[in-house]
This record gives sequence, C-alpha cells and structure tokens, in this order.
Amino acid sequence: MVSSFGEFDLIDVLRRRRRVDGRVPLGIGDDAAVIVGPAEGQWLVAADMLLEGRHFERGSTTARLIGRKALAVNLSDIAAMAGCPVAAFVTVAHRRGDGVEFALEVHAGLGELADEWGVVVAGGDTNLWEGGLVISVTVLGEPTGNRAVTRRGAQPGDRIFVTGALGGSLASGRHLTFPPRLAEAQTLHAAVELHAMIDISDGLLADLGHICRESGVGAILAAERIPLAVPPVVEARRRLEQALTDGEDFELAFCVGEADAARLRRDPPVPVYEVGEIVTGADVCVVDARGDALSFASRGWEHRW
Amino acid sequence: MVSSFGEFDLIDVLRRRRRVDGRVPLGIGDDAAVIVGPAEGQWLVAADMLLEGRHFERGSTTARLIGRKALAVNLSDIAAMAGCPVAAFVTVAHRRGDGVEFALEVHAGLGELADEWGVVVAGGDTNLWEGGLVISVTVLGEPTGNRAVTRRGAQPGDRIFVTGALGGSLASGRHLTFPPRLAEAQTLHAAVELHAMIDISDGLLADLGHICRESGVGAILAAERIPLAVPPVVEARRRLEQALTDGEDFELAFCVGEADAARLRRDPPVPVYEVGEIVTGADVCVVDARGDALSFASRGWEHRW
Repeated sequence: MVSSFGEFDLIDVLRRRRRVDGRVPLGIGDDAAVIVGPAEGQWLVAADMLLEGRHFERGSTTARLIGRKALAVNLSDIAAMAGCPVAAFVTVAHRRGDGVEFALEVHAGLGELADEWGVVVAGGDTNLWEGGLVISVTVLGEPTGNRAVTRRGAQPGDRIFVTGALGGSLASGRHLTFPPRLAEAQTLHAAVELHAMIDISDGLLADLGHICRESGVGAILAAERIPLAVPPVVEARRRLEQALTDGEDFELAFCVGEADAARLRRDPPVPVYEVGEIVTGADVCVVDARGDALSFASRGWEHRW
Repeated sequence: MVSSFGEFDLIDVLRRRRRVDGRVPLGIGDDAAVIVGPAEGQWLVAADMLLEGRHFERGSTTARLIGRKALAVNLSDIAAMAGCPVAAFVTVAHRRGDGVEFALEVHAGLGELADEWGVVVAGGDTNLWEGGLVISVTVLGEPTGNRAVTRRGAQPGDRIFVTGALGGSLASGRHLTFPPRLAEAQTLHAAVELHAMIDISDGLLADLGHICRESGVGAILAAERIPLAVPPVVEARRRLEQALTDGEDFELAFCVGEADAARLRRDPPVPVYEVGEIVTGADVCVVDARGDALSFASRGWEHRW
C-alpha cells in the first residue's frame, strides 16, 4: 500500500518542530539554510554517518535511540574541539518498509537531543529506498574560549586524562545513550590549557594515536589507571583490552601540562581520570604496574577494504 | 582478502589533495573542521544524499560521475540561493566489494568538480558496509550581492524564467554531467532583482509549486514556451510532460518583476527562457496556446511511504 504520507509531509512536520533561533534566520524548507556566524567569524563543522548493521542494530534498539545517536556522535566531535553546537543538518535514507511512524521516531529522538543542547535542526534531505537505514548528520558549532582545541599540540611531559570509564560500550548499549561531553569540554577549556583533545570513538589506543601522530609525539598509558567500564565478572586483562580498543566510548581524552594536571588532581571541575603521559617518540605504549610493556591483538577500530 | 588499505589511508590521500584556502584553516583530519565566516556573518548550508539505485545506477555510469553528482546537486542548491560555495563535507558508505580504486574514483570525481568551483573538501566520514553506495554531502557557501535569494518573495505579475531546457535528464544521463548554474545565478542576481528562485530537482511543476507555496501565490505556465530537452522523436505532449515532471534538470527557475523581465528579454546576461507568470491563488496551471488548461498524471517527484 502506498501511503498518502510523503516526503513533503515529513518536511512539514519537521518545520513545525523547529526552534526559533536568531542564529538560523532561514531553516528547513528552502534550497539551503541561512546561518548567522559568531562574532569571531569561526565555525566548527563535524560530519558523521550512521549505518544500520554497523553503528546500530535494528533488533536491539529503538528508532528514537538511533536518531539520538546520529546527532550524539556529532555533538561528541564538537565537544572534542571544546565547541558549542548551534545547528544540525540531517540526511536520511529510510527503508521503505519501515513506515512513517518509524521515520518520525528517528527524527523525534534526534530532535530531543537537539533541544537538550539548543541545537537547531536547520535542514537536510529525506529519501526512501530498499536498503538499510542510513543517517548522516553535519553539525555546525562555535568555538568557545580563545580557540578551538585540536589534536595537534600535545607536548612531551603532558599528562593524559580521560573523562570517564572505557570499554564495552557496544555490548552494554552505552553507545546509544551516552551523554556528549560538551559541558565537560567547555568547563575544562575554561579551567586549564588543553594542549590537545579528541573524543574516543575508535578506542583510546587508536584515538590517542591520532593525537600523537598530529602532535609528533608518543604516549605511555598506565594500565592500572585506565578506568574500566566493563564489569569485573570479565577477566581483568580482557576488561583492559576492551577499554583500550572497543571504541564508541565517546568520552574525551586530552593532554595538559604538569601544572594544570596538578590542578585537575587537586580540584577537578568535572570528573577526570589521569591515565598516562606524553613522551618523545611516535608510539602509544601501555605499561603495567611494574613498568613492563603490554601488547594487544587489536589497536582499535578502523574500516579496512 | 582483507586489503592493507584502510580508512585512515584514504583520509591521508584526501588530506594530501586538499586545497590551501584561508577560509578553511583546519580541514580534513581532526574531529571537526574550522571554517572562517564571511564578513557579513552569513552562511548558506545545503545537504543532500545520493543513493545507489535511486539517484544513480552503478551499471550505467562511473564512480567518477557518481562522486561528481553528489557534489553537483548540492552546488545546485547553493546556486538556487545565488550563493558562492566555499566548503564541502562528505560522508560515504562504500560497498565493501567495490574496492579501494572505486572509492578513490568517487572522491576524484567529487574533488574535480570541487576544484572547478574553488570548493574545499574540508571534512567528512568514510565507512564500509555490505549495502549500496551512499554519499551525503553538506556544502557551506556565502551569499552574494545584498542577500540570499529564497523561495519566498514571488509576487502576482512576476514573470517566470528558467535557465535551460527541461526533461529526460535521467534517460539522457544529463543528471550526472549537468553544470551547476552557479555563475548564471550570480550573474542574474547582480543584473536584476530576483524575487524568488529554486533549482529544478523534482520537476518544474513541483518546484514552481514550492515557490508558490512559500510565496502565497499561484502560477500559469505557457506550454508552448517550455524549453524541451527531450528530442522531437518523442511525441510532443509526452516531451512537454517530461519537461514539467521528470525532475533532476538542475536548471534554475526564478521570478522577476515586469521591468526586469523586459530587460532579460532585451539583453539577457545569460541564456534564459520565459515560461509563465505568477498570479494570485495557489495553483500551478499549464495552458496551451489557446489558453486551455492542460492536466498531467504526475505532478513531479516526491518520495512517498
């Protein structure tokens, strides 16, 4: 049965939901949206795509949580720059058999998280096909403080921190419900000098590797300091490996100088865990309490052909 | 066989290709890009997704043309606002079996068109899955002249123009090779007062309908004035119907007052075709040379559940 509900009806529903925001004088419903830039003239832009069967499984979650995650992973990228998100653009390939209610639920889940952070869903594109559900989101945000915090800038002697426990996110479902660390990033950016920061999507080993590569440094992680999210019913070494390589934690990893590290140990403005140190070199090493290097089969997530 | 070529290798290839542009101080390779806004503080943002089997057929085209189209449809949206494109963000779901060369060709086709228009590919996301090829592009652009031209602003008495011949784009392959009408839009915006403008993606009937709905007006199209792209071997009425409803023409339709229309008739700065008139009301009507209304089975393209 062909429904009487079409693409333009969906656009109407989304338009009626839109927030009034002076920064988005023209939102959904034209060929392009109009966005008014911050006074400083800089925008942050992040874009990520979620695929059915890869970033979410239809059977084990809801349309609402899928929509939520599609925005959340992008907010996490804006957090990793210590930015403040402003507007989101959403392109979706809905599976025809899913029906209108499912599509509206995807948008509702995304919209709820957008409202929570004052983000305007300002445009996008809706499609139907026979393939799996695909959602691509582009988020525009403003830098906070004096600058955007990048992956480049870690220095030997810096201390490495993370904002939360790691590992097992996909198994526990946390990858669908995690809070983007926007407030934490902005608070830290105001409190200390962040030399480099990244959000942990591929696993701490891989993502710290990105910081090291961009900064031209190496890193040593202290195994016993890594905060573990996987419950202790799992064998200790496996819990550690999961924390380092599972990915999709969406916590932040960041580097600060020793003086700022001391301040964070003494009086942390948000919960943080010190996990290691930046060194000269190019490798990310993990050492146990005796200083012996540990090795892992996986180095974190990467798509390979 | 698992190739040794991974997601981060592809990112490296794309980074090496990037243009140096002061407006994009930080491009591919961090959590988000940094874009420097235009002096006026306004950005245009357009986002469109292409799906295998819907917007392109793998068998009848090349990876290069698929990549080209993914950017071109977004440039067409920026043209429809009389904007100038600056940066593109590209998220892709590659089909695993396609191989690395295919993926690189998609990016090469997109990159060539980006270079042609001075657009920086500034970020995105690369994925592999078992499903069909999906490419979603978000383009940021600057308004030109005194403002962005929207769909709202057509007035009764306005004359309606299009920038080129319509119909048969999918059958002829023009939907893969069309030139985005950026230069034409900017030239027209500088020459006359564009009351409303749209790019023709769903078919002239449907897209003029969008202008009418946003502007609170109706329109009358003169059947004998519609420039037909379908060759005359096809029956005349069918050629007209295709011109009005096939879609994917990516020409511009726009509305100007009578004085500007007279200037465009006398001395057009770019090729334009006058096709009708804005009237009070809400409908888009097509009339033949005797003034009799014509009706069509299709009203243009819309995804329906």
